[in-house]
Amino acid sequence: MSARAGILVTGTEVLDGRVRDRNGPWLADRLRELGVELAYVTIVGDRPQDMERALRFMAEQGVDLVLTSGGLGPTADDLTAEVVGRFQGREPVLDEALAERIETIVSPLRKRWPNLDPEAIRVGTHKQATVPVGATVLEPVGTAPGLVVPPGARAGGPTVVVLPGPPRELQPMWSAAIETDALREAIAGATVYEQRTLRLFGIPESEIAETLRQAEREGIELQRLEVTTCLKRGEIEIVTRYEPDGASVYDELERLVSERHADTLFSTDGDTVDAQVAQMLRERRWTIGVAESCTGGELTARLTSPAGASEYVQGGMVVYANDAKVALAGVDRKLIDEHGAVSEPLARALAQGARARMAADVGVGVTGVAGPGGGTERKPVGLVWLSVAGPEGASITRSVSLPGSRADIRDRAGTVSLHMVRRLLLGESDG
Amino acid sequence: MSARAGILVTGTEVLDGRVRDRNGPWLADRLRELGVELAYVTIVGDRPQDMERALRFMAEQGVDLVLTSGGLGPTADDLTAEVVGRFQGREPVLDEALAERIETIVSPLRKRWPNLDPEAIRVGTHKQATVPVGATVLEPVGTAPGLVVPPGARAGGPTVVVLPGPPRELQPMWSAAIETDALREAIAGATVYEQRTLRLFGIPESEIAETLRQAEREGIELQRLEVTTCLKRGEIEIVTRYEPDGASVYDELERLVSERHADTLFSTDGDTVDAQVAQMLRERRWTIGVAESCTGGELTARLTSPAGASEYVQGGMVVYANDAKVALAGVDRKLIDEHGAVSEPLARALAQGARARMAADVGVGVTGVAGPGGGTERKPVGLVWLSVAGPEGASITRSVSLPGSRADIRDRAGTVSLHMVRRLLLGESDG
Repeated sequence: MSARAGILVTGTEVLDGRVRDRNGPWLADRLRELGVELAYVTIVGDRPQDMERALRFMAEQGVDLVLTSGGLGPTADDLTAEVVGRFQGREPVLDEALAERIETIVSPLRKRWPNLDPEAIRVGTHKQATVPVGATVLEPVGTAPGLVVPPGARAGGPTVVVLPGPPRELQPMWSAAIETDALREAIAGATVYEQRTLRLFGIPESEIAETLRQAEREGIELQRLEVTTCLKRGEIEIVTRYEPDGASVYDELERLVSERHADTLFSTDGDTVDAQVAQMLRERRWTIGVAESCTGGELTARLTSPAGASEYVQGGMVVYANDAKVALAGVDRKLIDEHGAVSEPLARALAQGARARMAADVGVGVTGVAGPGGGTERKPVGLVWLSVAGPEGASITRSVSLPGSRADIRDRAGTVSLHMVRRLLLGESDG
Repeated sequence: MSARAGILVTGTEVLDGRVRDRNGPWLADRLRELGVELAYVTIVGDRPQDMERALRFMAEQGVDLVLTSGGLGPTADDLTAEVVGRFQGREPVLDEALAERIETIVSPLRKRWPNLDPEAIRVGTHKQATVPVGATVLEPVGTAPGLVVPPGARAGGPTVVVLPGPPRELQPMWSAAIETDALREAIAGATVYEQRTLRLFGIPESEIAETLRQAEREGIELQRLEVTTCLKRGEIEIVTRYEPDGASVYDELERLVSERHADTLFSTDGDTVDAQVAQMLRERRWTIGVAESCTGGELTARLTSPAGASEYVQGGMVVYANDAKVALAGVDRKLIDEHGAVSEPLARALAQGARARMAADVGVGVTGVAGPGGGTERKPVGLVWLSVAGPEGASITRSVSLPGSRADIRDRAGTVSLHMVRRLLLGESDG
């Protein structure tokens, strides 16, 4: 039997979609590591009644643990600690020592903004230091303390872990939370599940459905695995969870997928194409440079996103205007006049230009119509030409027709170009 | 009395955080436009039992409308239509005509992937065309039809709108859904709320809390407004909702905020700094170019994100390596040797280089330590130097110490630089 949990994200700004919830996904990963099954993520606004109802719902489903994020700020619309205390049947008490520690934390603010009202700060601090009796306090990383609140004597039900909204505060405070006795008791006896991820590029999802049916016909006991497939940034991801004794069943499934989809399966250990490209460049001590147009900087931003990217990324040129293509990437203006900015020769010239101007081992060129305007019958929105160039004349050039919005097209063009870089690094070349 | 709604997002990949939910926020905006109050967003995995429980929870809270997204694909783990039909007490029926229409949609797939198994496609199509009796079908934009499913005779409770997961399918299908009688009936009598947004840059959230207390002291009837404040990309956003007759109360609040925070309030109509910069550049027919280092392409990606950005963005240089700073942005190598890559002179040189090399009216230079490695005592992680340069020698140069992760630092540095561009466009200059 596995322990089950729910995540309750609070905040009208998250419910409304003005702020994206980054804590739910992060906490989901941490729960999985602990062997706790996540059953629900619920987002509510800053209305105490809705928060209480969502807590009651999760308690009624029998979850052992509820994690809340948000609503711990100094403003009056931040009510989580109060609501959770009441839900657990625990009175609010001002923790004077905690109030002093928060005072110490916020005092540098006064230097930065000397006109702050000291009374405003005091009211906020006292609010943040008022905690349910019997709760374990998690020391603030920002200014807000977190809490582990076991059910009160009358209440029964789940233990509630109250965490702040900002991810950089929540994450270290979660590490402190899992060290507390209150949390350990709540999840005692959790089963640790295994999870494995396969990634494929270049086939539709229905083919995977057929492979799963084939697995059943071959007698692979799929009921012992929890398999989910999804389309993500133009790739298919197959995630499988199983209890440790299901490992041999998973191995059979992976074998079948590898056989049927040898040409499109590119990752069996969950690594993304981004991570594979980064690792291959590192191992080879090769560098990469980009000349991108329709992706507008996103491809270079994606390459430079991991820590340590400066080891292998020389840089990028976002050659949006045609003048920039000529002046920066060294593209021959005649090519643009003859073939247009979205064309095979331009993609090649951009890849070569990126390689030369950046003094990089691998150059990438991307040019396309991201839309929504600017499409023509011959060059519709979604048409993207891509080229990668490596040492000794190696190169791969392709065009794709990408579906979706401007943002989708920019994102997918990035994915396609990374797959082309991967193939070049594996030794493929058109020539 | 306002109609209330819940959003139920399904999919283990979303619950696990492998795929970010983009539909909840988008649907939240659409509900607001319709005057429907959003009470809950719940994410569940592909387990029918959890989906049913979440539907029951929302029904018990008395919502008038539930919107579901996801779980309409051809694979067997996509169960939403079946679960919703059962919940509403409506039998599943194969809609033969719908099956044929889906067949027509998927047939081009066979050309693209000639090895597809026709039986796999047929099974998937029939699954997708099996709908609860009495439901209104929303024509597929991808391959999956949506549904508007009123409560069955026995069931009572909310009307459920079943939508697909991919945003580019969901969005047009939502437009079709709001034209259906079934949905119109479910939300008849909704009050249309007003919503206004203020944005401030450069003060802490506690100051806004104090302003709200001041508003109460001045007798502004805040209880007639629903005010939420949040920190977002380094800015403060104050969103206020009110019924139409609360407009004069809102005007008083806005006046007070404008008085107390004249120097930091930059938007009273909800426009982001991104939108303001884009509009000012357009109006002036000025162009912009970027030379960015620690932001790795994100600033240029942000500038080129809106449709039509090619009117004013010349392009960008991601000068990650020092060689690229010299070769591309024309930075004097001596400056790097003397002052280091993260320094005031470098930021200036990058802004000037961006302006010159891109032949742009405005140049932006960003150089900093995004971390997590590479920080020193004198130049710690989070230190970023920024400079903007305009015509006639106008320029603004600043350094900031940004908190948070590598991703936070990159994102906030982008926000700070856009505010500097805004101020340059408003006529400010250091010189």
